[in-house]
Amino acid sequence: MNFSVFDHQMMAKAIKLAEKGRFTTHPNPNVGCVITQGETIVGHGYHIRAGGPHAEVHALAMAGDKAKGATAYVTLEPCSHYGRTPPCAKGLIDAGVARVICAMQDPNPEVSGNGIAMLKAAGIEVQVGLLEAEAERINRPFLKKMRSGMPWVQLKMAASLDGKTALQNGNSQWITSRLARADVQLYRAQAGAILSTSKTVIDDNASLNVRWDDLAEEVRSIYPDTEHFDADNSGQKLRQPLRVILDRQQQLTQDLRLFNSAGEVLVISGPEQTKADSTIDLPQLLANLASQHNINHIWVEAGATLAASFIEQGLVDELIVYLAPKIMGTDGRGLVNLIGLTEMDQAIELTIEQLTQVGPDIKLVATFKSSR
Amino acid sequence: MNFSVFDHQMMAKAIKLAEKGRFTTHPNPNVGCVITQGETIVGHGYHIRAGGPHAEVHALAMAGDKAKGATAYVTLEPCSHYGRTPPCAKGLIDAGVARVICAMQDPNPEVSGNGIAMLKAAGIEVQVGLLEAEAERINRPFLKKMRSGMPWVQLKMAASLDGKTALQNGNSQWITSRLARADVQLYRAQAGAILSTSKTVIDDNASLNVRWDDLAEEVRSIYPDTEHFDADNSGQKLRQPLRVILDRQQQLTQDLRLFNSAGEVLVISGPEQTKADSTIDLPQLLANLASQHNINHIWVEAGATLAASFIEQGLVDELIVYLAPKIMGTDGRGLVNLIGLTEMDQAIELTIEQLTQVGPDIKLVATFKSSR
Repeated sequence: MNFSVFDHQMMAKAIKLAEKGRFTTHPNPNVGCVITQGETIVGHGYHIRAGGPHAEVHALAMAGDKAKGATAYVTLEPCSHYGRTPPCAKGLIDAGVARVICAMQDPNPEVSGNGIAMLKAAGIEVQVGLLEAEAERINRPFLKKMRSGMPWVQLKMAASLDGKTALQNGNSQWITSRLARADVQLYRAQAGAILSTSKTVIDDNASLNVRWDDLAEEVRSIYPDTEHFDADNSGQKLRQPLRVILDRQQQLTQDLRLFNSAGEVLVISGPEQTKADSTIDLPQLLANLASQHNINHIWVEAGATLAASFIEQGLVDELIVYLAPKIMGTDGRGLVNLIGLTEMDQAIELTIEQLTQVGPDIKLVATFKSSR
Repeated sequence: MNFSVFDHQMMAKAIKLAEKGRFTTHPNPNVGCVITQGETIVGHGYHIRAGGPHAEVHALAMAGDKAKGATAYVTLEPCSHYGRTPPCAKGLIDAGVARVICAMQDPNPEVSGNGIAMLKAAGIEVQVGLLEAEAERINRPFLKKMRSGMPWVQLKMAASLDGKTALQNGNSQWITSRLARADVQLYRAQAGAILSTSKTVIDDNASLNVRWDDLAEEVRSIYPDTEHFDADNSGQKLRQPLRVILDRQQQLTQDLRLFNSAGEVLVISGPEQTKADSTIDLPQLLANLASQHNINHIWVEAGATLAASFIEQGLVDELIVYLAPKIMGTDGRGLVNLIGLTEMDQAIELTIEQLTQVGPDIKLVATFKSSR
């Protein structure tokens, strides 16, 4: 396949557009579209929120008659099925587009090559694979769920430089800075579900939702537009992730902030979720969240015990760690409840993908080495 | 004071030159000198090693007759006293230099303004204060000792991401990568003394010296020249820091690698160094190392107990922390032996000055907040 520099530029622009929907499209993928006549952009758009028009619809509406004979750059194969909206492949055909370049094929079994086939059958020139890795990256949760049936899991941890999450007496407010906590809001706002435990919810009386006022100005500006907010711009209509709380011993009470804040709550306590040893069956829970609740992206925010379970069972796709430049002492509480290592090669090894400072704190994004 | 862009460029070059001596000049300061005629550099040099010629001597030798009427840029006030070499102020006067720009005054009581006064008395135009902060930075150990009588202390720590320095059974080789350990050699090679404990020396049978073979190629290339090495370039003549080992219970034995490797060893075990509670009096020890052994730069490399003592007594000027991307578990050994914190505001707070990756590991350079 030969793509020109211009082709690359246009697809990069389409990917940038797609990313603008990242707080609002779940469980749909992020998709962007750019339509060109010669080297002029005549239309562009992106999928803003589930239930709303697809990227191609926005771009075609903008292009109008200029779509005839045009080239369309789409970050994901145009859909071929009648869902909440008519198929985008049909829209491109009806508009008279001459050439369609897709970054990647859609693994959704309802599409998966059918969109491309529809376009080709209509005589449109179709090319696939331009900036495919970049297009993969912006839809890791959607793609993982489509391919494996399992959601994509991010585990958040926060500790002092000496790896402590709380003092011996449990005091932990606040280890990390206001800016680090605002960064956490950014991840929550992108997730389909937040997974935590009754202990974390009760200890901190945490609401575990997305709060417009707590989002950094920089994050608010990424929200696609303000049309979805109340007149007072209070963010009451923010898409809230589903809060999934493990509560095996049924300790949650209705007076908690959790139950009196925006967003839905799913409490997991029933025996149907637990294994013979009476622990919660995490892989089964994740699979259920994907299949029954259409969740593709889970943000895990809990204590050292749940973190250890997720890590030991190899359920984490990406680790987000905030380290505050503080020393809390050897009697504080540890980061990950693992014990019993006797050889250094038993240590869990990570690869650091990103290392940055968030205000005074260190932030690192890491993945697990080996098959974990 | 008005300095031109050219003046700034020349002083920056002199500072770069000065830094080339950082592995070899201890206990002397790093000094660089550039001599110009108009906008042409006619001489430059730097102090290579204690006992050898000063920066000005090298630069004047190179300039020869062209020093007459020239401008000399020196990173530190030229010396005025007869030491191992004749005073540089006299050298600049004898060479007929017309103008001398110093980055800063020398706090050494034997100089401290006298060099500048000598130059002025000879009719030379003298200006002081160009790139002073940068000149301060390259001589932090020398300047601290001159001003306070105390050495400048760097504390090295290495741990896993969850703050562990060893497994429960003591296994710790290796937490950090080969590249991180090579980076440690770089710090050792700049220090006047390495301070450690008999426990660390015995546990690892550590030689705690500088090994040419373990220095990264990049570090070797920083060494000022190779004239100081053996014909086989084995580095046998490397300047070795004094190894100061705390051994209150006299556990060191002569068969240890420590006593059979290049460099001198000072064992601290006598009662004259200990306090009433039979712990070693660290501030007194540091003061003695400065006054009796002419040490201005100490690199502390030991375990969690000594680290805690140094930190609690406010004796650390800079903390160098290597964090390996590993999780070692809650039963591993902690980073700093502090206990008993009950409120988050009792945590020891740091400011991160540098955050980088060294191979797979995280490296941070930090200072202590408040008066610690």
